[in-house]
Amino acid sequence: MFGADLIGRAMSEVDTPGLVIDADAMEKNIADMAEYISSVPAGLRPHAKTHKSPIVALKQIEAGAVGSTCAKLGEAEALQRGGVRDILIANQIVGHRKIARLVGMARHCDIAVAVDTEENARQISEAAIAAGSSVRVLVEVNVGMDRCGVEAGDDAIALVKKVSGMPGLRFFGFQAYEGHLVMYGTRSQREEAVKSAFAPLIETRKQLESSGIEVPVISGGGTGTFDITSQIEGVDEVQAGSYVFMDAKYGTVDGPDARFSPAIYLWATVVSRPVPDRAVLDIGLKTATPEMGLPKFLDIKGTEITGLSEEHAKVTLTSEDARQLAVGDKVRIQPGHVCTTVNLHDNYVVARNGVVEAVWEVAGRGRSQ
Amino acid sequence: MFGADLIGRAMSEVDTPGLVIDADAMEKNIADMAEYISSVPAGLRPHAKTHKSPIVALKQIEAGAVGSTCAKLGEAEALQRGGVRDILIANQIVGHRKIARLVGMARHCDIAVAVDTEENARQISEAAIAAGSSVRVLVEVNVGMDRCGVEAGDDAIALVKKVSGMPGLRFFGFQAYEGHLVMYGTRSQREEAVKSAFAPLIETRKQLESSGIEVPVISGGGTGTFDITSQIEGVDEVQAGSYVFMDAKYGTVDGPDARFSPAIYLWATVVSRPVPDRAVLDIGLKTATPEMGLPKFLDIKGTEITGLSEEHAKVTLTSEDARQLAVGDKVRIQPGHVCTTVNLHDNYVVARNGVVEAVWEVAGRGRSQ
Repeated sequence: MFGADLIGRAMSEVDTPGLVIDADAMEKNIADMAEYISSVPAGLRPHAKTHKSPIVALKQIEAGAVGSTCAKLGEAEALQRGGVRDILIANQIVGHRKIARLVGMARHCDIAVAVDTEENARQISEAAIAAGSSVRVLVEVNVGMDRCGVEAGDDAIALVKKVSGMPGLRFFGFQAYEGHLVMYGTRSQREEAVKSAFAPLIETRKQLESSGIEVPVISGGGTGTFDITSQIEGVDEVQAGSYVFMDAKYGTVDGPDARFSPAIYLWATVVSRPVPDRAVLDIGLKTATPEMGLPKFLDIKGTEITGLSEEHAKVTLTSEDARQLAVGDKVRIQPGHVCTTVNLHDNYVVARNGVVEAVWEVAGRGRSQ
Repeated sequence: MFGADLIGRAMSEVDTPGLVIDADAMEKNIADMAEYISSVPAGLRPHAKTHKSPIVALKQIEAGAVGSTCAKLGEAEALQRGGVRDILIANQIVGHRKIARLVGMARHCDIAVAVDTEENARQISEAAIAAGSSVRVLVEVNVGMDRCGVEAGDDAIALVKKVSGMPGLRFFGFQAYEGHLVMYGTRSQREEAVKSAFAPLIETRKQLESSGIEVPVISGGGTGTFDITSQIEGVDEVQAGSYVFMDAKYGTVDGPDARFSPAIYLWATVVSRPVPDRAVLDIGLKTATPEMGLPKFLDIKGTEITGLSEEHAKVTLTSEDARQLAVGDKVRIQPGHVCTTVNLHDNYVVARNGVVEAVWEVAGRGRSQ
């Protein structure tokens, strides 16, 4: 049902469930972030895992971003195909098949990748030499999320010294994501925690630079911390992603996120009204994700989505307005977690003032290899 | 990376993350269910929401199933395109665009759909007359899940009387899914609860039939209840879906599920080994779903997946064996919830004895309209 025939139609004519970008709100989020970033020394390298769309990535770059961040090689390929030239893959690329794709791609755009072992770096180096390409490499440092990465200090310094001598690689600095803090506490608690988390890495950077090894960038930060991380001396790039669309979860975080508005919604239909205080929508776990909390109505008060099954959302209706909902009515629902919700959809309907303006592919959807 | 070039390769050469069917195990699950069903009066109409593949659906039909069940019109279209002829959509189809698709499709295969309002039934009736087609209609009855559906008794009888007189429709009976009970309690608690849940509907059926209205089928049941529901006198079809692949959640249910084996797994790579007791895999919320519990290692003891982020799974390693895991190792992971996990993947790698035999499209993936 998606495609060219939708363009120019009123949203009321667009079938459901679907994922809709509010073009005005998205453009305002991009502009507001660009304005903020122009006021600090750090640059913006927005995470494309949120939107998985080269069209959106290029809008961010046009507004001043230095390039894109992504999570997977398949996402990087989707960005490159759509015209993005400077792409940082913020994770390890492991295995000879993926490394071959990486070094091949590096002949056609400027790619950067995270490493956290000497062996992985050596494999990329050897493949890059064989392919005649050059890959920027960031050493990933654990700043407290306890996922991937080496520890700041001696371990990081030792790995940097090995990596920076490998042919076919250009040492690009450090990847460091404070994912455990992006929704942590109040704004001031978060600020203190983020600064503490980055302090050992900033110190490591100083040690390396005083020993003559240049560290081009430290890259990290998310939507809940961008205006903290971007103000730490020694952090060069922030990788915020969700700000472009926002979601219900980030909407509850105390802090900088207040400057961004919901710019994406699920377009859903009431498919059943079995009793006065219950409605059922045609969205569910296959069109929306629950892991950061349930989606929410954007427009109608007295509504609470109480559960998602695979293709249904149960809604409790507690206001007179809400009880007016009838079978066939279409409603706007804000995703709980935008990044995983987007990954369930093949296309965006792009609307402005209630009229469809474009249909864009979620080009990186499912590209987890 | 998926496609013809994979066929004939050893699984060790297949890149990750990916979704793999163990063909022997799937065929055994299909055969074991067929054997059970041949021993009871009820037929099997397996739910295709689990696999979203007409190839798998046709295997089930070849083994004796009466047709397929699905959740969405888009899934029904995918099944029809793949050769399935008898399809029950176990939900309401709402809105004139979808109803047009439904009645058009009904000219090319035998479709059945659930309704729970007179108005929706009338819209389908009018569209079917205009299209010159005929649609089987089931009245959905709430057997305690409190989602869609009318109540058994007077409400159901009143709706049946209206629906069964509408031209373009053939009254096909009742849709009744005891989804709230498929994982409930012990086997004996579940049996008692399911029988109580269906009793008012069985009574309603008797009343209708004694007043001269034939009720062709009552259709319901899931993988946790199929051997209860199928033995209730007056239930004609069971809609179990997950049995074909099984998952970690159903593996914990006390009861009939013990006869089925895991027949699907996520193929994953260790991408980081930052500390001795932690490994990180390249699966996450964009390749596996957490809402019914986290995925689990199939082969290695002393491993626990403790959390999923978007593209990572963190694993705690507590045994010597598990601590042997190294960056680059590939492992088999059982999904927590198979139906939603399948919906994240474009293709199945089909393997037998560790060699790729086929690659099948997840044809209904994302077809939620």
